[in-house]
Amino acid sequence: METKSAYNLVIVGYGGMGSYHGQLIEKTDRLNVFGVFDTADYRLELAKGKGYETYDSMQAVLSDENVDIVLIATPNDVHKDLAIEALRAGKHVICEKPVTIYSADLLDIMKVAEETGRVFMVHQNRRWDEDFLIVRELIQKHTVGDVFHVESRVQGANGIPGDWRQLKAYGGGMLLDWGVHLLDQLLLLTDSQIDSVSAHLSTILDTEVDDGFTAFIRFKDGLTALVEVGTTNYIKLPRWYVKGSEGTAVIRDWDLSGEVVRSNPDVEKVEPKPIQAGRGLTKTMAPPSEESTIRGPIERAETIPEEFYSNFVAVLEGTAKPAVPNTEVHRVLVLIETLFEAAEQNQVIHRDI
Amino acid sequence: METKSAYNLVIVGYGGMGSYHGQLIEKTDRLNVFGVFDTADYRLELAKGKGYETYDSMQAVLSDENVDIVLIATPNDVHKDLAIEALRAGKHVICEKPVTIYSADLLDIMKVAEETGRVFMVHQNRRWDEDFLIVRELIQKHTVGDVFHVESRVQGANGIPGDWRQLKAYGGGMLLDWGVHLLDQLLLLTDSQIDSVSAHLSTILDTEVDDGFTAFIRFKDGLTALVEVGTTNYIKLPRWYVKGSEGTAVIRDWDLSGEVVRSNPDVEKVEPKPIQAGRGLTKTMAPPSEESTIRGPIERAETIPEEFYSNFVAVLEGTAKPAVPNTEVHRVLVLIETLFEAAEQNQVIHRDI
Repeated sequence: METKSAYNLVIVGYGGMGSYHGQLIEKTDRLNVFGVFDTADYRLELAKGKGYETYDSMQAVLSDENVDIVLIATPNDVHKDLAIEALRAGKHVICEKPVTIYSADLLDIMKVAEETGRVFMVHQNRRWDEDFLIVRELIQKHTVGDVFHVESRVQGANGIPGDWRQLKAYGGGMLLDWGVHLLDQLLLLTDSQIDSVSAHLSTILDTEVDDGFTAFIRFKDGLTALVEVGTTNYIKLPRWYVKGSEGTAVIRDWDLSGEVVRSNPDVEKVEPKPIQAGRGLTKTMAPPSEESTIRGPIERAETIPEEFYSNFVAVLEGTAKPAVPNTEVHRVLVLIETLFEAAEQNQVIHRDI
Repeated sequence: METKSAYNLVIVGYGGMGSYHGQLIEKTDRLNVFGVFDTADYRLELAKGKGYETYDSMQAVLSDENVDIVLIATPNDVHKDLAIEALRAGKHVICEKPVTIYSADLLDIMKVAEETGRVFMVHQNRRWDEDFLIVRELIQKHTVGDVFHVESRVQGANGIPGDWRQLKAYGGGMLLDWGVHLLDQLLLLTDSQIDSVSAHLSTILDTEVDDGFTAFIRFKDGLTALVEVGTTNYIKLPRWYVKGSEGTAVIRDWDLSGEVVRSNPDVEKVEPKPIQAGRGLTKTMAPPSEESTIRGPIERAETIPEEFYSNFVAVLEGTAKPAVPNTEVHRVLVLIETLFEAAEQNQVIHRDI
């Protein structure tokens, strides 16, 4: 494919995520939202209203030579077939997350991408979330010393959205929905392999899929992580809770509020005085003296990686490596499969991931 | 033993907890702090300064016919021998927690108490902590609906106190120290048996004992619990986080600050609008509308049980049942042993407890 000033992209699946992509891509110089395919007529009407081409079949999209890129934002269960069809038709593909429900299906797609020489990249957009980038920098810079424990949570009180996300066959449930983001982020925080995992799936809402989960993950380098998604939480715990040898960092929410508290290396450690706590005294849980700790705000991330869409164009033109390598996406799916297995068996699974 | 206007009590082990008991018992009508035995001379001097009898051996305490009750507040490893000696000498016994390091040792003590007809009761003082009593009432009153998940945490940044609490042979470590309280409280929140447990012990401080732990406990009735003690936490997560079918309750600290947020039964559920969160939209994690939830403060506990010491006197006189039954204390020790086992093996242990 010759280099173009802008590549034509068709959005397949024009629901919430599909139209969100549309808005973002409108702002991207090198990509042009060319058309939309959806099985719902009203969505095609919406797309027409925006001046996009509309298609009445996937075949029509794929046989249109004007189309360079297909963006798949359908329910999860059809990602694989659509992606493979599109790649075989010579299109590059951007696919929504979770890319597939099973890791083996992603390997099939990767094989076809390899064969056809087309670019296939998954929209793991939360690799660009600033809260995550801050945590990654904080670990790299040893802001709280050597980090040995990370807690990553998203909690809401709205239940699962009332669409295909409640259905197992469509890849619904929170472990696949939000889990894929939090676990993807987690794996970017360390170079270490996973040593073992355990998980509990919540099914309070009586849906056939999980309405949340708690996963405890141990890495070979000693790092431990608690990853939690909840949809029945009327009060939120912090988005991030990070423990290091010299302090603790908390990011409360996507507004990036939070704080870093560290031990003060210039003050000799003083044994704290016992405090009254409930019906007992405690020295262990007494707050450290004000002089012995340093409190600071959460500092904004210094390095923001190249945007997803411009990276995609660069990969397509052979000038950059993918910001979301398929091998990394595959590892997250293997982790998710292992968490499902651990939860089902209610066992710790010891496996190198 | 005939009924007396006040019973004479000797404190064995006059360290932090022993002298704290002394202060509390001074305020108790029916108990009289009669004397102190400790192996450290300076502590005997302190006791003399308060006008207490002092003893130079345990034998001297036990052969003193004026002594009705022995209160054991020594390091954990000698609780058992001292308790059995005291019971055999005809004394009633109050013992600090954790009563023994192994559950089998408590059974031995219970047997001797049975044989001698003396009262043996463990000072599980945190059964009277108001934060715990509030959570128990909140569950009983269904304030947040049916409670299905409880998180109970204590977190400090001071490490383990620099005494025998750092040593394994003395029953040191946080699972035995604070764990025994949090687990004892947890077991009082449900009538259900435990189905399975997993645990991670933290050993960041390079002590031979755990400097904290995370335990995940599933009960047969479906209740799940996360119990956590940390001594390397510069920022605290809430003391209690309680999820029910209709809401969430949080108690932040021993000051009883916190809140209850419930769904408003008078407002029809509205699908929330998506919010921008990091580099994505989320409907699932959007805050519910203000009208659809009811926020309230944490209400103080209505029912405060009879105090430990007056209950002890009543048990001794046969007019009340023990506020801390030994069978319940035994169950907590079995749970702790199982958590050690789960952590050691890094496995979920399925066992009826």
